[in-house]
Amino acid sequence: MTKVASNLSMIPFVSVENMMQIILDEGVEAAMAQIAVYIEEDFRRWPLFDKTPRVASHSRDGVIELMPTSDGIDYGFKYVNGHPKNTREGLQTVTAFGLLASVDTGYPVLLTEMTILTALRTAAASAVATKHLARPDAKIMAMIGNGAQSEFQALALKRICGITTVRLYDNDAEAESKCAANLADSGLTVIACRSAEDAVQGADVITTCTADKQNATVLHDNMVGAGVHINAIGGDCPGKTELQVDILKRAAVFVEYTPQTCIEGEIQQMPDDFPVTELWQVMTGAAPGRTDARQITLFDGVGFAIEDFSALRWLRDRLETSTRREMLDIIADPDDPKDLYGMLKRAKAKRSTA
Amino acid sequence: MTKVASNLSMIPFVSVENMMQIILDEGVEAAMAQIAVYIEEDFRRWPLFDKTPRVASHSRDGVIELMPTSDGIDYGFKYVNGHPKNTREGLQTVTAFGLLASVDTGYPVLLTEMTILTALRTAAASAVATKHLARPDAKIMAMIGNGAQSEFQALALKRICGITTVRLYDNDAEAESKCAANLADSGLTVIACRSAEDAVQGADVITTCTADKQNATVLHDNMVGAGVHINAIGGDCPGKTELQVDILKRAAVFVEYTPQTCIEGEIQQMPDDFPVTELWQVMTGAAPGRTDARQITLFDGVGFAIEDFSALRWLRDRLETSTRREMLDIIADPDDPKDLYGMLKRAKAKRSTA
Repeated sequence: MTKVASNLSMIPFVSVENMMQIILDEGVEAAMAQIAVYIEEDFRRWPLFDKTPRVASHSRDGVIELMPTSDGIDYGFKYVNGHPKNTREGLQTVTAFGLLASVDTGYPVLLTEMTILTALRTAAASAVATKHLARPDAKIMAMIGNGAQSEFQALALKRICGITTVRLYDNDAEAESKCAANLADSGLTVIACRSAEDAVQGADVITTCTADKQNATVLHDNMVGAGVHINAIGGDCPGKTELQVDILKRAAVFVEYTPQTCIEGEIQQMPDDFPVTELWQVMTGAAPGRTDARQITLFDGVGFAIEDFSALRWLRDRLETSTRREMLDIIADPDDPKDLYGMLKRAKAKRSTA
Repeated sequence: MTKVASNLSMIPFVSVENMMQIILDEGVEAAMAQIAVYIEEDFRRWPLFDKTPRVASHSRDGVIELMPTSDGIDYGFKYVNGHPKNTREGLQTVTAFGLLASVDTGYPVLLTEMTILTALRTAAASAVATKHLARPDAKIMAMIGNGAQSEFQALALKRICGITTVRLYDNDAEAESKCAANLADSGLTVIACRSAEDAVQGADVITTCTADKQNATVLHDNMVGAGVHINAIGGDCPGKTELQVDILKRAAVFVEYTPQTCIEGEIQQMPDDFPVTELWQVMTGAAPGRTDARQITLFDGVGFAIEDFSALRWLRDRLETSTRREMLDIIADPDDPKDLYGMLKRAKAKRSTA
């Protein structure tokens, strides 16, 4: 009987503290630029991924979701919740953690916090979409909704898409002030606005990222001029949308994964045969992106498992040179795999001699 | 703006080592008896659970599964793989970890190894089924397949169902010797047998728990006499079964959750309208269990998310008095939930002054 001791029983774990340090080691903007490269790599090989809409458990106040995917070599999944009322209790709306495992053995190889990592990958994904869909000369961005995701969106679009000015608006004035203060030394020109109508003035890119779990109208049709690119990020579950339907009718709409976005995105407001393009098709050249400078393009982003997979791959690669992780004793590893009970027996014998 | 610091950002984590110590604190048999009580409690309130067949990612050599469920108050899920070829490389066929979270906030409240805990809950579930379905005077058990699960099956049936003798058989003689040695001081009469035919002689209960990912015939029809209760545990994924079809035709068949067992259990060999009874219905009295002493009863066990949920509840309750856990920094917890970026900024400021 094979009795090879395995070195797979301790798996690397990245805590919140270590995640912050890894990101700061790289710099927030550089980290998002790196993650964007991983996302583009994975979007370009999109067809080979095992894709399934996320597995959601809905309750009165929120949702808990599991988001798995696999490229046949690695398997990844994320646990993520969405509870808008949490902020009223001083808690995060969204918390997350994630895991990479080996498809070959089924053994986990990395466990990590993903609340912060999700913020970076969400902004990186918006930047990737913007890079492929906005006008190349886009410089001014409106950021509507100035919560936990807003600074990351602004910084990713600065770094990856050349945005120089961000116009902020939130109906919570404190959130807007917080965002403005956080971005004050970012190199962006930051303009605090008094209304969403004000924020979109002159904007080349409009990003909406609000959190209410309801059909809201953050952006009215008359606020969207020719040539604008919209990232609609906040509408991400059934019954939660941000855009007036008329905008969808005027825009070329791009999504991550159509079966999921039909359920969770802005296009849940549209009939089933509403035409959309999957973003990966633009990246591989299989479908056109923006076709002219006056077109309105819309990235109806809901967040897809492959983006988390990309972020997990990025993190694993960082850990090849970083020691910012702990080792977690989460996989039982008896010397003889058929002798799990023997592990307990030996632990018991050890107690009685201790 | 509310700035209540949360005490939910560190979550209890039970490592493999601590899981072993918690189980040894109780005693293996007592721990399984306790878990059986939690399983019975949850089976009795079965209709209120959020049930979904597990989310499986199949590959050439195995499967990785996520098994979520919720009772509306707590949400639980397990990550588990099944890779039969792993034992050839000195690895476990099955490894697992799991999590409990609050439905109200979506925040995780417990993360734990579940390789060992799954072994206990699987055996406890078999014992619960046996208690409700076997003849009350059952004393002799055949245990076919003497791998990692076998000792737990034997000990759970001893403790919970009054089994006094176990007759062992495995086509791997070393596995059989290992199981016999592990059970030598258990209080069970242990009889090592030379064949499956030998093992089932005089058995009141037959448990099959083999691991090959294929349609095998561990138990032939002529090996099953009147009045026997069978726990068929090893057939638990598409294309993996242990029983000859004729046995299913003669037996009253009981399952955990019909939609999942149709895909994964022995009954995948039968037509869609093959009659089965869900075990919870026997426990609540909604359906009969064994109707006479000569009937053959079969528990077609594949393992269901609610059993893991029960085991997680058991563990959480143990942790009320046990300190055998670590606290894991896996939930990002900014003072202001809308200011995730500020957490990074403050961490950066701290670095530059350190």
